[in-house]
Amino acid sequence: MFKKILIANRGEIALRIIRTCKEMGIKTVAVYSTADKESLHVRFADEAVCIGPPSSKQSYLNIPSIISAAEITNADAIHPGYGFLSENAEFSRICEDYKIKFIGATAEQINQMGDKATAKETMKKAGVPVIPGSEGLLESVEQGIALAEEIGYPVIVKATAGGGGRGMRIIRSSEEFQKNWDDAKMESGAAFGNDGLYLEKYIEEPRHIEIQIVGDQFGKVCHLSERDCSIQRRHQKLVEETPSPVVSDELREEMGKAAIAGATVIKYEGAGTVEFLVDKHGKFYFMEMNTRIQVEHPITEEVTDFDLIKEQIKVAAGIPISGINYFPKMYSMECRINAEDPTQNFRPSPGKIKQINWPGGHGVRVDSHVYAGYTIPPNYDSMIAKLIVTARSREEVIVRMKRALQEFFIDGIKTTIPFHLKLMDDEQFKSGKFNTSFLESFNFEDL
Amino acid sequence: MFKKILIANRGEIALRIIRTCKEMGIKTVAVYSTADKESLHVRFADEAVCIGPPSSKQSYLNIPSIISAAEITNADAIHPGYGFLSENAEFSRICEDYKIKFIGATAEQINQMGDKATAKETMKKAGVPVIPGSEGLLESVEQGIALAEEIGYPVIVKATAGGGGRGMRIIRSSEEFQKNWDDAKMESGAAFGNDGLYLEKYIEEPRHIEIQIVGDQFGKVCHLSERDCSIQRRHQKLVEETPSPVVSDELREEMGKAAIAGATVIKYEGAGTVEFLVDKHGKFYFMEMNTRIQVEHPITEEVTDFDLIKEQIKVAAGIPISGINYFPKMYSMECRINAEDPTQNFRPSPGKIKQINWPGGHGVRVDSHVYAGYTIPPNYDSMIAKLIVTARSREEVIVRMKRALQEFFIDGIKTTIPFHLKLMDDEQFKSGKFNTSFLESFNFEDL
Repeated sequence: MFKKILIANRGEIALRIIRTCKEMGIKTVAVYSTADKESLHVRFADEAVCIGPPSSKQSYLNIPSIISAAEITNADAIHPGYGFLSENAEFSRICEDYKIKFIGATAEQINQMGDKATAKETMKKAGVPVIPGSEGLLESVEQGIALAEEIGYPVIVKATAGGGGRGMRIIRSSEEFQKNWDDAKMESGAAFGNDGLYLEKYIEEPRHIEIQIVGDQFGKVCHLSERDCSIQRRHQKLVEETPSPVVSDELREEMGKAAIAGATVIKYEGAGTVEFLVDKHGKFYFMEMNTRIQVEHPITEEVTDFDLIKEQIKVAAGIPISGINYFPKMYSMECRINAEDPTQNFRPSPGKIKQINWPGGHGVRVDSHVYAGYTIPPNYDSMIAKLIVTARSREEVIVRMKRALQEFFIDGIKTTIPFHLKLMDDEQFKSGKFNTSFLESFNFEDL
Repeated sequence: MFKKILIANRGEIALRIIRTCKEMGIKTVAVYSTADKESLHVRFADEAVCIGPPSSKQSYLNIPSIISAAEITNADAIHPGYGFLSENAEFSRICEDYKIKFIGATAEQINQMGDKATAKETMKKAGVPVIPGSEGLLESVEQGIALAEEIGYPVIVKATAGGGGRGMRIIRSSEEFQKNWDDAKMESGAAFGNDGLYLEKYIEEPRHIEIQIVGDQFGKVCHLSERDCSIQRRHQKLVEETPSPVVSDELREEMGKAAIAGATVIKYEGAGTVEFLVDKHGKFYFMEMNTRIQVEHPITEEVTDFDLIKEQIKVAAGIPISGINYFPKMYSMECRINAEDPTQNFRPSPGKIKQINWPGGHGVRVDSHVYAGYTIPPNYDSMIAKLIVTARSREEVIVRMKRALQEFFIDGIKTTIPFHLKLMDDEQFKSGKFNTSFLESFNFEDL
């Protein structure tokens, strides 16, 4: 087992990793930018090394600084957390060169899954359902119509150079194909100077549902059920839950098998997440695979009692997976508490926290690196806490979450707590019938 | 179901009850003494009524004030928590007279279990093993020797008027009977002016193990496994855990059956605890029954996912028990965090809390009514928080508890945290092989 792990991250995930290391008897090294010297991850690590100024590029993304910190402190492994260098193939390779175990995917696996086209191709070969569509750019409108007939309407044409919804059209029948095609081509040409288009089946009312997997060095991959992350605002997850209100036992088994097949084909080691879109008919399509721990991993821990950080470390150290202990009768939900003003377009609200009252009691878990008196720096992402609530049913989780949110006071900054409180009272949310567009029509004004 | 519950208590248990009421959609009324107006239970209840000055007698034990508060606020039930009026038969009867549901035992049940001799007699009739001994006072040394031969050595003779270990002798054979008898008689006569002695089997190296039971109005009683509370200092529990390291599946079943039999014979409704001593041979003896919720109930909740306060309320409202969901593979432990200085004989340390860092993360639950800036009044018991940790094995619980204790900073007062930290490193504690005398030889000096 590793003797000392350097944590190449900050905030709650750095503290989360330190907690597991302490429980495993492994020493820890925190790295920090000058903006983070008062953070709890620095306080609770056995050693801490300053790696640069506040800018992420000069600190948490600064590979030479981080490798130096590991060398100086004699760390034998690096845990990258999520974000920052966690899916950086070069960093994974450099760690390997320096004989420091990277607790994450290999450079090859990161590349395989990081390039969306390669990932889709790999998954398709492994028998995982992918969103049907053109292989590369369409050469003509006729080719587009023929393909749309083959895969079935609705379809979406997208600018290859696109982004932000521009150069994109949903097409529901062959009659409206030509007009939408022309519009998309003109718009993308004007916007990006490139009018190349590709085509995909359009997934209506999709839910974002992901499968947690863990693979070991002996080729064993198992899955730990799904997380439903359909509550998103501009592709940012705000609430996650498990089990999903729309996943049946059969669908879970199918999706689990697909995720395992996909991970097995790339000989995946460690914790990973296979993200799917599930349409309103219960059909699922591979979206992407994240080769790292996810922000929302605690809800899986709560229903399985499986410490995912511990498993990452064990698997990285060459220990085979064993003893998954899944309690499917429990429900768990996470609300991301961000230092943002939800009434002002989720504008970041960094600054000093004057006072906090933390929620507590039965079924309540909090993962956070902040405290009363702490100043949230403006340099990084604005998540300051994860509130994770577990109970015996979805209904009980929602009332417990509401109760916990009511106890949660943070004075001095704006947070997303009022949004979550309103969400817990929303009838559609409570019904479980919503998709990834749900928040588009949510009224954030009267929080 | 009740519409509004008045909580006739303070501190963490009052907040604990409010939390469950909120989750059940029941309104709450807090009562408080003038010393407690800044307590969180006052802040989080829907209504709060001041019932008197700091002295418990004039506030939390003041029955007319509490009944008035319930009448004024239209509360249809009263939850007494633990301590204070929770086992006061008169209060239970008065609530009944006022048609306010007392969420606890009836006056008759409280009396039956409150008087130790009656309780022992009742349990014996129900077939529950009790500590064998004389029925009342011994008339002569010969009678004592005969009884000791019958029940087996070692025995203990105790002054009927005694207390604090005086007038008490352990006797291990008939040869040493006369001398010990004479000594005990002389000592009790001198100390108490009453040399009456009674005799009981002496339980060697006992563990304090209690069974949580819940009974409903339909005569169903079930048990929720045991709690081991052998870590005591002067009969004050400091750490509790479940399952007990010494209870086998067979013993658990036997003790569970005995507890159910005892509760059934008095038609017990609500949550209760049957306390046993378990000797080194695995034989168990009834000690007493507590007709209320216990301080240490959360560890049972953690391993069963059964909300005991909710069950108390449901049973009091006439709902039958259902759905006990016991996960025997989980382990849970509670450390009582008291505002006391463990190096100074656990001298109370009331005062203002300047700063707190709460532990968090996987498997960590905190139940507490205090916060940074809160002043602990000197008038009540000194428990300020319960730290409850759950994991998959006793070993993992201990390392996780240590990790959580290391994160737990309370500035401004002395607490029992350093004691708990030392305990988690103690080899004998870790081995699970200890009895209720364990802390007598514990070195509290070097914390």
